[in-house]
Parts: sequence; structure tokens; C-alpha cells
Amino acid sequence: MAFEFKAVRRVEFADTDMAGIMHYANFFRFMETAEHAFFRSLGYSIVTIQTDPQVGWPRVHASCDYNAPLRFEDEVEIHLLVQEKKTKALTYQFRFNKLNGPARLEVARGRLTVVCVTKDPHGKMGATHIPKDLADRINTAPPDMMA
Amino acid sequence: MAFEFKAVRRVEFADTDMAGIMHYANFFRFMETAEHAFFRSLGYSIVTIQTDPQVGWPRVHASCDYNAPLRFEDEVEIHLLVQEKKTKALTYQFRFNKLNGPARLEVARGRLTVVCVTKDPHGKMGATHIPKDLADRINTAPPDMMA
Amino acid sequence: MAFEFKAVRRVEFADTDMAGIMHYANFFRFMETAEHAFFRSLGYSIVTIQTDPQVGWPRVHASCDYNAPLRFEDEVEIHLLVQEKKTKALTYQFRFNKLNGPARLEVARGRLTVVCVTKDPHGKMGATHIPKDLADRINTAPPDMMA
Amino acid sequence: MAFEFKAVRRVEFADTDMAGIMHYANFFRFMETAEHAFFRSLGYSIVTIQTDPQVGWPRVHASCDYNAPLRFEDEVEIHLLVQEKKTKALTYQFRFNKLNGPARLEVARGRLTVVCVTKDPHGKMGATHIPKDLADRINTAPPDMMA
Repeated sequence: MAFEFKAVRRVEFADTDMAGIMHYANFFRFMETAEHAFFRSLGYSIVTIQTDPQVGWPRVHASCDYNAPLRFEDEVEIHLLVQEKKTKALTYQFRFNKLNGPARLEVARGRLTVVCVTKDPHGKMGATHIPKDLADRINTAPPDMMA
Repeated sequence: MAFEFKAVRRVEFADTDMAGIMHYANFFRFMETAEHAFFRSLGYSIVTIQTDPQVGWPRVHASCDYNAPLRFEDEVEIHLLVQEKKTKALTYQFRFNKLNGPARLEVARGRLTVVCVTKDPHGKMGATHIPKDLADRINTAPPDMMA
Repeated sequence: MAFEFKAVRRVEFADTDMAGIMHYANFFRFMETAEHAFFRSLGYSIVTIQTDPQVGWPRVHASCDYNAPLRFEDEVEIHLLVQEKKTKALTYQFRFNKLNGPARLEVARGRLTVVCVTKDPHGKMGATHIPKDLADRINTAPPDMMA
Repeated sequence: MAFEFKAVRRVEFADTDMAGIMHYANFFRFMETAEHAFFRSLGYSIVTIQTDPQVGWPRVHASCDYNAPLRFEDEVEIHLLVQEKKTKALTYQFRFNKLNGPARLEVARGRLTVVCVTKDPHGKMGATHIPKDLADRINTAPPDMMA
């Protein structure tokens, strides 16, 4: 059972914009990086043939609050926490902690809600229960960590 | 005085991901496209030397709720509405209306809060009043449009 | 029969990097924009079910020579020319002409070679003849235009 | 003195397109990743204040030949080799070696030519000699490695 994962990335030149900082949309790419690495840490790929039926994880909500910029070559820890676990959906919180510089600084905090879906024989997507094997490996973070 | 703007974009191949749909982070790029076109419609560039002092518009909040996917070559109208106007910040709502297909469909709805900032002589950013000339051209959308 | 197409794009904020100019990799996205619009001008989508068998167009070569930068809100014409047409491949040349500013300026010139492929029943890709209907609509640019 | 560097990246979901493979423009982002990590390995940042005058490295040529696709979660080694060193320019070769799968496979090979520039007091860029301290740390790869 796991409720968190920490991924580390370095901000690349192509992640920046002419304001000299990481473009705000790229925080959402970084969230996904941590989400998929979390799945690998559970022994799964987000694009899996390991479950029957095969499932996908479309996003229904994404948000981010920005406190401070990230700059080129900054190292950032993306701390994923499972905030909510429903039978057919997961909500993650992401804390962006800048690792370089005088003090560890939370520069941004994001949230993603993803739904577990499968396709019927006609290709139409519908929400489905998270496969049991996978669901058994995921739990929610303790409330005191989410304060 | 303007409180809305409509930009149209076509989903490009590079906007899609292996799920065959527009990657969720790209909705945030499309929001910005509409925001900057809105400024041009007011006679301003978002990267302006037209105001004294020069101002920038960092994001403090971004969010999006997804209802349906966008696919390659879909045409989407990004309808920007000014939801809130404060002395030093603006909040926009964005409605993504898919233009092709049997019926006009709102596939996603987003929100951005941006703060007007300027730099002091030491390069430090701080919130500042929206320049009067620009502020005079922007008003908030009527409440019944925001329902 | 067509051997050229002109697409126009405006450089967006997210296309720039901290050097204040369009990131060099984005020229390749812009080439593809023109390529796909060229196909639409022929009555085809690059992702087509209009041909039997269905074909795809993976890239085997891409290159770009850069003469001058593009900046935020620059308008650029991407002039596609069919440089070479083989039975199973096409080579395009792309000229990036900056439309704003004192004089029309060619800021970059690119090249793409794409191969027409189809999948066998086992999913394996292989080069195939460009479908006749489509091939009949494409010819190579006159040599004096390619000088 | 160094003439090569190996960086490793994992293909992310956002790097793929609807063809299910890494988008061809992203190979150019990966080249830059290796280039900048090479500079760090020399004790420099590509965005440096370590040299006097400060220099930048705009690209004048970029190219890539593609032999096989990269897919989501593939691990790829980007092997940078210094192909040519002039007084004011460097040319790198990049070999993309897929690390997972039955055998190490070179999926693509790229090339970048970058020019060392500085700005005059009016902000105009011009080519300049590679700063001596930095130039002394870079040599060209042995000819037999470049065959």
C-alpha cells in the first residue's frame, strides 16, 4: 500500500518561456511525470495491459496554485500524495519543492482528479471500478499530512 | 470596455498524445492564446512597453475541468470572460466550445488568475495596480453570463 | 495538382524560451502545421480513412537552418514546397518568412522527408506506394522555385 | 578535456503523439537536454555568468534522421559527441540509443551546430570566440568514433 511518491526533475531550457521562468502549463506535465512514476513504483504502467479489462485514466480536473517561479536548471521535487480514493476515481495532490537554493521552498501546489475508464466493444469510454489488484496497492494519505 | 473575447484554434498533431486526444496540459496553452489575443483586441500586447511602469502578468492560479476530449483537427472556440477584476489582479473564465461535429459542445471550462506586477530597481517583482489606461478598457462579464 | 502551400502562424508565449525567442524545436512543429494544412487543401486529412489501405507518414529526416530569431507575436508565413516526390516518399522544403517588421525576412529554412507506410495484419509498418488519388494531386515545385 | 557525454531520459506521456510514438520534434528537445548536461559536466551552465563577456549559444543548424520510433516509458541514452570545434562554433552529433528491449538499438541520429555569441552595448548579437577557459575543456571526438 502506498499513498505518496517523490519524483525529481530538473527544469530544462525548453520548459522556460521568455519571462525567464518555467511556463505555467509545464507544471501539469511535471504532475503527470510523478503520477506515472508512482504507478511504476507500484509495479504498473499507466498504459497497462496488466489489468483485465484494460483501463485508462482521463483527467476530469486539474489545478495549480503558484507561489514562486522555477528557473532553468532548478531541481524540483514533485511530491505526489493520494488525497482521495473512490471506487472509480483518484485525486492526487502535488507539492513542488524546489531543492536548490538557500532553503527548500514549496513553489507550487497542484491537484489532479483522474477517472478509471474502460472501453465497451463499440469503443465508447465509461467509468469503471479501479481493478482490485491495483486498488489494493493504493491508499489515501493520512489526514495530518494533507493539512 | 470589453469583458470577453473569442479565439479559435485547430488542434494540431503535436497537441495530441498517445491516447489520441489533446493532452490535458495543452488546454492551458490554449487559455493563454485567448488571453493574449484579448489584450491585442484592446490595443495592448501582454508583453508591453506601452505602460509606465512596464508590467507583467504572472499566474497565481490555473484550473480546468474536462468534460469531453478534443481530437486532431477539431476546431475549438476559446471563449474568454472576465470573471473578476481587482485593482491588482484579473480572473478569467475560459469555455472551450468544439465547433465541428453534430452540435456545439462545451468540452472544458478553465480559469486563470493573473496578478499585475512590476519590478523594482533591484529586479524584485511586486504586485502593482493595473495601469489606468488598460484597466479602463476591461470590465467584468455580466453576472447572468457567468451562471 | 499542387506543389506548395502557405500557412500563417503567430508566435505564442509558450513557443518562446528564456532567450526571448521561439525555441528552435518549435520550428519543427510549425513545419508540421503547414504540412497538415497542405493535405487539407488537397481534400485530405493526414490522419485519413479516405485511402484504402489507410496510410501514415512517419518522418525519416528533419532539418532546419536558422538565420534570424522569431519573437513573441511575430507573424510568420510557413511556405511549403514539394521538393521531391517518390513513389513511397515526399520531401518538403519550408521557408519561414517573417511577415511583420520593416521587410519580409526569411528567418529559417527547413526540410522534412516523410515516408508513406501502412500496417500489415500483425501491426508491422512497411513503406507503401502513395495512394493514387492522393499522389495525383501532388507534384514537385518547378526547379527555378527551389534555387 | 571532454568530447562526449551520455544523458538518459525516459519518454513521457506528454512526449508522445496520437501515432503512439514520441513526436519527432521532441528529439530536438532531448538533444538540448544532453547538450546542457554536457556543459554542466564541464562545470559550466549553458546560461552562464561564469564567462566574461557573457555568451549565448543560438542554433544555426539542427537535423535528425529517424530509424525507429520511441514509445512511452522507453529509456533512451542520448550520446553527445563533439563532431567539430571551431573558434566560434561547435557541432555536436547525437545518437539516440534505446536502452530497453531485446537489444540496444540506435533509433535516431541528430546534429546541432551552435554559435557562440555575445551582445554589444546596443543589444545586437554577434559571433565571438568561445571563452578560453571553456574552449580548453572541449575537444573533438576521435575520427574513428565518428565513422
